[in-house]
Amino acid sequence: MTRVGPTAFVLAAILVAECVRAGDSPVAAPPRPMADVLAATTAADWRLLDPDNTLYLQTPAGRVVIELAPAFAPQHVANLRTLARERYFDGLAVIRSQDNFVVQWGDAEGKRSLGTAKATLPPEFTVRAGPQLPFDAIPDRDGYAPAVGFSAGFPAARDPARGEAWLAHCYGMVGAGRGNEPESGNGTELYVVTGHAPRQLDRNIALVGRVVQGMELLSTLPRGSGPLGFYERVEQHVPIASVRLAADVPAAERANLEVMRTDTASFRALVETRRNRRDDWYIVPAGHVDVCNVPIIARPRR
Amino acid sequence: MTRVGPTAFVLAAILVAECVRAGDSPVAAPPRPMADVLAATTAADWRLLDPDNTLYLQTPAGRVVIELAPAFAPQHVANLRTLARERYFDGLAVIRSQDNFVVQWGDAEGKRSLGTAKATLPPEFTVRAGPQLPFDAIPDRDGYAPAVGFSAGFPAARDPARGEAWLAHCYGMVGAGRGNEPESGNGTELYVVTGHAPRQLDRNIALVGRVVQGMELLSTLPRGSGPLGFYERVEQHVPIASVRLAADVPAAERANLEVMRTDTASFRALVETRRNRRDDWYIVPAGHVDVCNVPIIARPRR
Repeated sequence: MTRVGPTAFVLAAILVAECVRAGDSPVAAPPRPMADVLAATTAADWRLLDPDNTLYLQTPAGRVVIELAPAFAPQHVANLRTLARERYFDGLAVIRSQDNFVVQWGDAEGKRSLGTAKATLPPEFTVRAGPQLPFDAIPDRDGYAPAVGFSAGFPAARDPARGEAWLAHCYGMVGAGRGNEPESGNGTELYVVTGHAPRQLDRNIALVGRVVQGMELLSTLPRGSGPLGFYERVEQHVPIASVRLAADVPAAERANLEVMRTDTASFRALVETRRNRRDDWYIVPAGHVDVCNVPIIARPRR
Repeated sequence: MTRVGPTAFVLAAILVAECVRAGDSPVAAPPRPMADVLAATTAADWRLLDPDNTLYLQTPAGRVVIELAPAFAPQHVANLRTLARERYFDGLAVIRSQDNFVVQWGDAEGKRSLGTAKATLPPEFTVRAGPQLPFDAIPDRDGYAPAVGFSAGFPAARDPARGEAWLAHCYGMVGAGRGNEPESGNGTELYVVTGHAPRQLDRNIALVGRVVQGMELLSTLPRGSGPLGFYERVEQHVPIASVRLAADVPAAERANLEVMRTDTASFRALVETRRNRRDDWYIVPAGHVDVCNVPIIARPRR
């Protein structure tokens, strides 16, 4: 007997009888496991990363690929492009790793010149919701926002009454640290969510993108023993060799990745596989999925 | 200017004007930061770990302390006591680490004798809800259950219509792996949640406890490159020196920890500090807290 514990990606056959017995919510389409949904995708279900919106963070253990989100934080993204082009981050370090929260990198001493980048930026914590902004809502209720879903590949939320939308602080999302002044963020200190989604940060700080590859290089870093998970000694800092915009890297050296689109029938089918698990292992499908429990899959270009 | 990024534990003063301007939900009591709530607790707000319900997992990096949950999985807990007493786990290993999901340990080869422990157990995935089971609900809505809250120190959920309660798969919760047969779990393969709460597992597998200290020793383990995050080579396994019941360890060698009670006014005040952040840094309090975003604090006994 093999006990593999909980399974995240399941290849097993479907037990339709089990679904009918235990299902909490009716499903219009016949249930399919996620592997089948992925196997049935076509080229139209995937998109290439835009080199102008992709950062490479080079750590001692390898490269982390971050997709930027100019639709939500255009000025932060522009500043990050400038910072990367002027090699602001090269030789800086990861300075913080707080368990079940965030890993953060930047200039521990705050002495490095910003070059031509801006020192302060408008608080791009929410954007105007509307037809100009793609938003594919999921029907699942959320405690932190009136509606949640996906916007051009990112987990997002919106409040129709206020006409606002914002990115959601899910695992792997990248944000720009700030001080107490809302305008004090500028992209020089970035953090990535490494624990249960701290959604209370939504609308309070600018999210600028998402790690699409190499997340494990950051999530496994030793936790800092200082307050807020800061490393207490310089020797504990994890050096950052470089941060580069993909567009500034020779094409042959780029991460050749494609990301699953979030505005397709295939993606909606994938969400349904996460909402109601239908494989042999599950007994009770949840009938619900948290927006942060939906994987937005990246893979080598095919 | 200091940009520390998002803060989890905040010591700053309260901006009452900010609260009034931005608050989404009225609060009866005056808002206090979490540090003030903790500072105001008395001995009655804390409880000592019961040595009969505490496991020590010894890894190369140190000791992980796990509190068991006999109210929810009595037969699994009893089996774990037997397995620990008969030194079943000693010399086994962590065999799986899947990013944003779980770390798992047990017998990779499945050859070790169970001794007097049971090979199969009833599926303790839910328990009967009722007056016999402590349950302190929080008012915050949840997508996975009709009600959520805390039961004797553990995050939990319940469904009054079905008369069922169960533990919630929050970060740090420990469960007993099983095969496809619901009765196939027996505690010999344990997993701990190391990512965003996989709440779809609720009611599908037996949770047996929670890591109260040493979580970072497991959450930072290198991710396995095999399917489901299993390590592909034996050399990657992380050895487990021993698993002991605290009651079987000399008193002087026990972790002398106390855990905050979850059935007190102090804990309700703590939850409110997580629901609406009131320090200088936050602009918009969420007016909501996910049950898995409430810390259940353990500290050295005072």
